[in-house]
Amino acid sequence: MTSEYYNQDVHGPFDLFDAGDLELESGGKLRGLKLAYATFGKLNAEKSNAILFPTWYSGTSKILELAYVGPGRALDTDKYFIILVNQIGNGLSSSPSNTPAPFNAAAFPQISIGDDVRAQYRLVTEHFGIKRLALVLGGSMGAQQSWEWAARYPDAVARVAPIAGTARETAHNRLLAQTFIEAITNDPAFDDGWYADGAVHRGLRAHARVFAASGFTQKLFNTRGWAGLGFTDTEDFVAGFVENHFLPQDPNNLILLARKWRDADVSRLAGGDLAAALGRIKAKTAVIATDEDVFFPLEDIEAEQKLVPGSALKRVSSVWGHLALFGVDPAWNSAVDAILSGLLATPA
Amino acid sequence: MTSEYYNQDVHGPFDLFDAGDLELESGGKLRGLKLAYATFGKLNAEKSNAILFPTWYSGTSKILELAYVGPGRALDTDKYFIILVNQIGNGLSSSPSNTPAPFNAAAFPQISIGDDVRAQYRLVTEHFGIKRLALVLGGSMGAQQSWEWAARYPDAVARVAPIAGTARETAHNRLLAQTFIEAITNDPAFDDGWYADGAVHRGLRAHARVFAASGFTQKLFNTRGWAGLGFTDTEDFVAGFVENHFLPQDPNNLILLARKWRDADVSRLAGGDLAAALGRIKAKTAVIATDEDVFFPLEDIEAEQKLVPGSALKRVSSVWGHLALFGVDPAWNSAVDAILSGLLATPA
Repeated sequence: MTSEYYNQDVHGPFDLFDAGDLELESGGKLRGLKLAYATFGKLNAEKSNAILFPTWYSGTSKILELAYVGPGRALDTDKYFIILVNQIGNGLSSSPSNTPAPFNAAAFPQISIGDDVRAQYRLVTEHFGIKRLALVLGGSMGAQQSWEWAARYPDAVARVAPIAGTARETAHNRLLAQTFIEAITNDPAFDDGWYADGAVHRGLRAHARVFAASGFTQKLFNTRGWAGLGFTDTEDFVAGFVENHFLPQDPNNLILLARKWRDADVSRLAGGDLAAALGRIKAKTAVIATDEDVFFPLEDIEAEQKLVPGSALKRVSSVWGHLALFGVDPAWNSAVDAILSGLLATPA
Repeated sequence: MTSEYYNQDVHGPFDLFDAGDLELESGGKLRGLKLAYATFGKLNAEKSNAILFPTWYSGTSKILELAYVGPGRALDTDKYFIILVNQIGNGLSSSPSNTPAPFNAAAFPQISIGDDVRAQYRLVTEHFGIKRLALVLGGSMGAQQSWEWAARYPDAVARVAPIAGTARETAHNRLLAQTFIEAITNDPAFDDGWYADGAVHRGLRAHARVFAASGFTQKLFNTRGWAGLGFTDTEDFVAGFVENHFLPQDPNNLILLARKWRDADVSRLAGGDLAAALGRIKAKTAVIATDEDVFFPLEDIEAEQKLVPGSALKRVSSVWGHLALFGVDPAWNSAVDAILSGLLATPA
C-alpha cells in the first residue's frame, strides 16, 4: 500500500540527492541519506535567485508545488529557482518505509530538524553550489526548518519566512504532537513498529480524526466550510479529506515526523537561550501567523518574532485554521503570496 | 476498581431517588431508575428558594459542592435549597457500571439529555413538591441540561444560567466528543464494552490525553499555569490531574455520557427549529461563556444566546479554558458567582 503512495507517479517528478552519511544530533548515523527534491525555474549565473522550501508534516514536494509555485505567483518560476525539498522521513527522502533492513521501519534512527537542515545544506551548497539563498520558507514543520536554517546558517539565508510554526516547541504543542503519535501507537496492530503493510489502518484513522478536530477551526465545521470541496457532511469530510490523506502513509514515517515536530528547538544552537539563538539571524524576516491557528497560536509565534531584530509579524486569516497551508483557501494563499512578494522585493 | 470510586466515601453523602421506570427518547425503557442527589440549605415554606444544578461530563455532585456551594457564595446555603443532581450514567445515578444484568455495561440503554431532565423533573416535582425552581444552572453537559430544562419546562424555571455549554451541539463539538469516545473504544481491551474491571486503562489514558490537549488553553501549559497545584511538568500534570481523574471511572459510563453530550439538541422540542425551541424560554437567562473555551466557543454560545428573548451574555475568562469549571481558578469562580448573584437578585 505505501509503495502505491510514495512514488514518482503520485508525487513526482522528483530527483534524489545522495547526501552521504549524516552524523545525527542523537548520536547515531544515517547512512547513504537520499534527499528527494524537485526544482522549478532556472538558477541564474550569480546563483542569487534560489528559494528553498522544505515540506511540512505528512506533506511532500508535490503539495508545495501545487499550492505555492507558478508563474505570476510569489514563488515565480520565471524569476526564481525554487527547490522543494522533502524532509527526512516523509516517504520520498530516506524514511523508515524505504530503507532496507537492518535500518528499516522501527529501526530507522530518530531524526531532528537540525539533521534535516544540515542535510539540506549539503544539497544547496555541494550539489547546486549556492552560497546564499534568496529565501527560505516553509509552513508548520517547514517553518521549524526555516527557523533552523536562518539561525544555524545566518550568512546563507538572505530572507526567511516561517509560516504557521515556531522555532521552539511550546509545552502545549508538544502535548498535541504526542497525542497524534499515541493515536497510532495505541493501535495494537502497530506492534512497536513491526506491522504488516496496511495493518495499522485503525490507528491511522484515529490519528486523522484527532488531527482534524484541532487542525481546522470550529467554524469550518459549523458553517460547512468544506462544502466547496464537494463533501456532504462532517463524516464525509473527515473520512474523504483527512483520513484519505493519512491512510496511504506509513505509520513509522508519521511517527518519526511527529517526534521531530515535537522536539524542535532552535534554542539548542545557543545552549538553550532562545533569544540568543534567534538573535543570530541576519535574514530579512517575515514571520507569518494564521489568526485561527490552534497548532501554532498567534501569541506563541509573536513572542518569538519579537526576539528577531528587524523582523515583521504578518497576520493572515482563514476558516481553515492551521491547515489553510494545504492550499484550500485562495484568499489565504493570496495574502501569503503578497507577503512573500513584499519580502522578496526587499533588498537583502 | 470502579466500586472504589463510585461510592459514598468518595462522593457522598448523597441520597437516591427512585424515579421509577422511564420511557426513553430512544424508544427503550430504563427500569427502576435511581437518581443520586445531594441537597444543601433548607427548602422554604413557599418552596420558592430551590436551585437545581446537574453534573457535567465525568463529574459528580461532590465537585459541584466543593467548587460552587457554601455560605456567602452565590449558591448560598443560608438562603437557598440547593439540589445537586447526578446525571444518568455518571456512576452514582443509574449507570452501566451499577446496573445488574441483563441491562448492565454495554447493554445499558442510551440516554439523552431530555431523558435526564424528565427524570429530574420527577425528583423536583414529585419528591420535593417544587413547582418552580428559582434557578437551574450547570456547566458543560450541565449547561445542556439547563437549556433543556428552560425550554422543556418554561413555567418551572424562574432563572437559568447555562455555563460553557450550548443547547444544540455544533458539528465541531460533535466531532470532538466523538474523538473522546474513540480514544476509549479503540482500545482492544474495551471489547465492545465487555471488559474486565480496570482492563481499559490504556484507553482511559488516551482519552484523558486528548481531553487535556483541548480542554485547557495553550497558555496554561506554556506558562506552567498548573504549578500552583503542585505539578512539576507537563507529563506530571497530565498524568497527576487528568489521567488521575479518568482512570478510576468506568469506560461504559464515560461513553454513555459522551454520546449524550454529542447528541444534545434542544431544537428537537420544536421540530428542529432552534429559534422556536429557545423562544419557549420564560426564565430570566444569563448565558455564561468562557472566552478561552475551545469545547464550547464564545461565538457558538453567543449565537444561541441571541435567540433567547431578554437574555444576557456574560463573558468570563480563565487560562484554564473550558475546564475552569473544575474550580481551579478562584478569579473565574468569583466572576461566575457575581453573575449568579446578580441573576438570583433579579425578580422573576
